[in-house]
Amino acid sequence: MTRKTPTEIGAEVTTRLTALVTGGAGFIGSHLVDRLLEAGYRVVCIDNFILGRKEHLQAAQENPDFTLEEFDLLDLARLHGLFSAEKIDIVFHLAANSDIREGTGSTDRDLRLTFMTTYNVLECMRRHGVKRILFTSTPAIFGEHDEALHENTPAHPESLYGASKLSAEAFIMAFSGLYGMQAWICRLSNIVGARSTHGIILDLLEKLKVNADELEVLGDGTQTKPYMYVHEIVEALLFIRANSDERLNVFNIGPRDTATVAEIAEMVLEMAGKGQRIAYTGGSRGWKGDVPFYSYQPSKLEALGWPRPMSSREAVRTAIARIIESR
Amino acid sequence: MTRKTPTEIGAEVTTRLTALVTGGAGFIGSHLVDRLLEAGYRVVCIDNFILGRKEHLQAAQENPDFTLEEFDLLDLARLHGLFSAEKIDIVFHLAANSDIREGTGSTDRDLRLTFMTTYNVLECMRRHGVKRILFTSTPAIFGEHDEALHENTPAHPESLYGASKLSAEAFIMAFSGLYGMQAWICRLSNIVGARSTHGIILDLLEKLKVNADELEVLGDGTQTKPYMYVHEIVEALLFIRANSDERLNVFNIGPRDTATVAEIAEMVLEMAGKGQRIAYTGGSRGWKGDVPFYSYQPSKLEALGWPRPMSSREAVRTAIARIIESR
Repeated sequence: MTRKTPTEIGAEVTTRLTALVTGGAGFIGSHLVDRLLEAGYRVVCIDNFILGRKEHLQAAQENPDFTLEEFDLLDLARLHGLFSAEKIDIVFHLAANSDIREGTGSTDRDLRLTFMTTYNVLECMRRHGVKRILFTSTPAIFGEHDEALHENTPAHPESLYGASKLSAEAFIMAFSGLYGMQAWICRLSNIVGARSTHGIILDLLEKLKVNADELEVLGDGTQTKPYMYVHEIVEALLFIRANSDERLNVFNIGPRDTATVAEIAEMVLEMAGKGQRIAYTGGSRGWKGDVPFYSYQPSKLEALGWPRPMSSREAVRTAIARIIESR
Repeated sequence: MTRKTPTEIGAEVTTRLTALVTGGAGFIGSHLVDRLLEAGYRVVCIDNFILGRKEHLQAAQENPDFTLEEFDLLDLARLHGLFSAEKIDIVFHLAANSDIREGTGSTDRDLRLTFMTTYNVLECMRRHGVKRILFTSTPAIFGEHDEALHENTPAHPESLYGASKLSAEAFIMAFSGLYGMQAWICRLSNIVGARSTHGIILDLLEKLKVNADELEVLGDGTQTKPYMYVHEIVEALLFIRANSDERLNVFNIGPRDTATVAEIAEMVLEMAGKGQRIAYTGGSRGWKGDVPFYSYQPSKLEALGWPRPMSSREAVRTAIARIIESR
């Protein structure tokens, strides 16, 4: 079986497919918008600009194939209007409350921004006959496990973010079965790169600016996760969409290796510090609901022919460099 | 390790625990209410009487330890009021849209009645410091599988009912982790018995009354599922609550064997028919979203010391007899 390479994925779009990207002004969303435009799609982007930023779409807005819709996916009537006005071929549904720590303050934030938004998208797809959805999910659905996560690891979420994403997956599966939709559910490892709106690298760079003596790091530095560079995740999403053609396509996406928080803090210090020393706040978790350790067993994605991404440390190092460059 | 028998479960309640039973006027709920009162609990029952029936609570209402609250769990303010007024020790959360077929008409029926009700219960528990919840879930969370279902079978729901129950499980797990709640998630096989408000036995008995020649049966008769008698499931719920003491306790509950729709139709004919012949509507599914075959591998429950329940055929036969008797 021959696999489509990322370059061929662009070449195949000859019929001017229209992609709806929700959360398209966000970190991953805006990189995806740029890549879809490059591949020849017409792109409609929805964002409520809670986390998304207009400047991420500067290049896209100069492209006549790009349309920006500024409203909230919770506004079901307006979303119906959009689905009536545009003939959408595929939805890339990325909109969510991606800031996990924020989710523990009020218990319905993730429920509304991550789960109900997904229900609204599915309901509009059903009513308007849109049959394809790619959804970005998360390893937070799994909770804590000793073993490397594979696609069928039992899901026991320990955060409202994880619970909301798992609920969204559940409804995508049911809508897919009941209404003949094809779905790609992609569970993204930690993603780093330019345009990120939160996360450890930004946190640490901010702290370096304000404290000349000390770099405060949440937890004890042992938290361990796989990291992927944002350009590579966007290629992976398009690769999976092009090469996996079941009704329901579920993939964990990330490198096999991991980086620790201590390693990341040291890289940040080395690349942007002024000799500060690292001060850990202690405890194995960065915050309540944090899963302090996970790793991925991405055999399914590898079997599909996807080349292994750069290592977690390489991804982090590349991201630090690009973020510093863009400031 | 010694296990508590169902009789001892009753004997242990010496401190007058208060149980809140949601959906307590329903089929399983009302049997649970009776059993909890017998075991010495104070019981507060909430029901909106969409599926529940007042006559199911006739015996309970003569008991001074029983309180009936008639309102909808979607009314969060009123639910908060109840949690303020009553010191609740444990919630048995059974309220749901249990009629799976009804769920496919509008896509937000299960979402509201099965999922949002669960979120409201969890949020009230969190705010009022209630730390224990037993939740009745379903094998519909799993979707179709060739193998017998165990607790860690991958969940791929194909109905909005299954998706809503899986979402409810996800939020229970997250609330349990974040706010220190203990949870028992019990995935009940098909349950039969007196007071059932829908399901195959009632359907067939109704049809027998109106057609003297023919008994119409949905599907081709090959649909195969495990069935459990309602009194046995209530004992199983109390047994699991008493004998499994992890933070998160997840169990599939049902017999290892199964009965087919054809077998059930033949039993109904034999016990209540007037020589009608069976006419199958054809197709492997009774309705859209139906999982035509599943079986259980209840090793975890057996390992806890629970005696095997009656067979699926015995459960169905007992239920038919009791339903005929009670009409």
